[in-house]
Amino acid sequence: MRAARRVPRGYWKIGDDVAVIRGGRGRVVLKVDMLVEETDVPPGMNHRQAARKAVAMCVSDFAAKGVRPDSFMVSLGLRRGTSQAKAAMLARGFRDAQDEWGLNMVGGDTNEAGQLVIDCTMVGFAERVVGRRGARPGDVAVVTGSFGYPPSGLAIMAAGAKAERGFRARALKTVVRPTPQLGVGLALSRYLTSSMDSSDGLARSIHTLAAESGVGFDLDQLPVARGVAEFAEMNSLSMRDLVLAGGEEYVIVGTVGARSLRAAAKAASAAGGELIQIGHVTSEVGEVHLREGGSMTRVADKGWTHLA
Amino acid sequence: MRAARRVPRGYWKIGDDVAVIRGGRGRVVLKVDMLVEETDVPPGMNHRQAARKAVAMCVSDFAAKGVRPDSFMVSLGLRRGTSQAKAAMLARGFRDAQDEWGLNMVGGDTNEAGQLVIDCTMVGFAERVVGRRGARPGDVAVVTGSFGYPPSGLAIMAAGAKAERGFRARALKTVVRPTPQLGVGLALSRYLTSSMDSSDGLARSIHTLAAESGVGFDLDQLPVARGVAEFAEMNSLSMRDLVLAGGEEYVIVGTVGARSLRAAAKAASAAGGELIQIGHVTSEVGEVHLREGGSMTRVADKGWTHLA
Repeated sequence: MRAARRVPRGYWKIGDDVAVIRGGRGRVVLKVDMLVEETDVPPGMNHRQAARKAVAMCVSDFAAKGVRPDSFMVSLGLRRGTSQAKAAMLARGFRDAQDEWGLNMVGGDTNEAGQLVIDCTMVGFAERVVGRRGARPGDVAVVTGSFGYPPSGLAIMAAGAKAERGFRARALKTVVRPTPQLGVGLALSRYLTSSMDSSDGLARSIHTLAAESGVGFDLDQLPVARGVAEFAEMNSLSMRDLVLAGGEEYVIVGTVGARSLRAAAKAASAAGGELIQIGHVTSEVGEVHLREGGSMTRVADKGWTHLA
Repeated sequence: MRAARRVPRGYWKIGDDVAVIRGGRGRVVLKVDMLVEETDVPPGMNHRQAARKAVAMCVSDFAAKGVRPDSFMVSLGLRRGTSQAKAAMLARGFRDAQDEWGLNMVGGDTNEAGQLVIDCTMVGFAERVVGRRGARPGDVAVVTGSFGYPPSGLAIMAAGAKAERGFRARALKTVVRPTPQLGVGLALSRYLTSSMDSSDGLARSIHTLAAESGVGFDLDQLPVARGVAEFAEMNSLSMRDLVLAGGEEYVIVGTVGARSLRAAAKAASAAGGELIQIGHVTSEVGEVHLREGGSMTRVADKGWTHLA
């Protein structure tokens, strides 16, 4: 698996016992995320897309922490008898990832496994890393996009849910080509008091930030993606669940101080994204409520537990 | 999976989207290695041993490069319904590894997979990393131990080969408790002109160093571990293959300049190890020969291809 293109100064080419990269300023930020065919590769996703997705999963975490990723390595588990064509598709997917996010692929490891496994390790450097513990009562709860496409797309792909044509295309695209918000995350890093990614769903992310920061959240509105309400209606699904408990989302969920909200929104917008205000932080530890029809209802800590 | 014990200053506790560690001097050295149950866990190896082995595989590469590992992360694939007891055994194995090699476990990721998969990512820092390309004609070929126990142990475990009692115990131990030579590798780093680990077997390592350095090797003797000749005889196996093409070995294979041989041997010995001179580097690119019974025979590039 030699998909690396460039070898910048201070980096070793792939192929020795170890990968060697130039150090950067600040602390070393690391992430490892394993993509497993059965649970992470929906029907209809090819090997090139799966390879790109494995890297995207790590990029999403870096985006949420406001850290620029520098390099990645992949550890592959391949079925016995995997064709040359499929291996080439994987290599192409890793090159896609390198190009899209300006990354160096610096190492790899290939093994035999019962199904496709792609374990991606990512490394970057940062003086500041946005954690999960900095949310304070009075902070504004924000997201960098709306929710509901990925779970809708999965319902279409895996369960044959019906959908209007344009919605179908948009929803499927978020599944086969998930796009972490790296530029927006980097632009927001100085404003966020806490943040995390939303790969396990919005409700899970909010509850996690609440627990880790020792605060609660009152949400004024759900960030519902366009068409999700109609899609839910058409298929007798719960829109609330599609938005709150869907998962496989690549949106950043976080908090900003009330005074920096305007500057943060401007920075997100300058980076080609958006910042949606969905509520605020309270002092009721672990309590997450949503304003619905004039009253506040409890939001359960429901999360995504993979395809299977 | 929270097996980390200590959280040194500058390190984040396990549990955020990313792992954060203090930077070190020099370049960043990374390694990822995937342990897959079917091919890397022989019958009779328990989960605690498998977890330790997954880390040992990475430590071995760091040892061969003369680099002290700082931290590691693990990405786990677990069968559905893996018992608490087995998960606890894994955690214990990771703690064993932390204690044995002075490592910080800084992150992890747990997934569902069809069989046990442990992907270990290791990181360290170094001003100097010993590569594979520095062997020069006239250099002395060295190994840091003798060969043959692991393949003998595997033949005993997996194929029921017969063995004398003491040999059996020693050989099995090298399989369930592989021990990379970290101290020796660190002590030798300033003397080695090239080196690599021998997880794919001695012949493969020598051929790789030859190809990467653009040299050849003349070997004067095989580093045969005690009892391997008798074991081979007893089971009608090829001793030469057990030593040259076995694999799963954790010995460092490398080259040192003729003038620094004595100092290198002293350093290895001070670190509790040994340095065995097995031959020398020639200018015949890619040619590896072994002196046997007065004549030189070609050593094929035969390597280890896992249990399966």
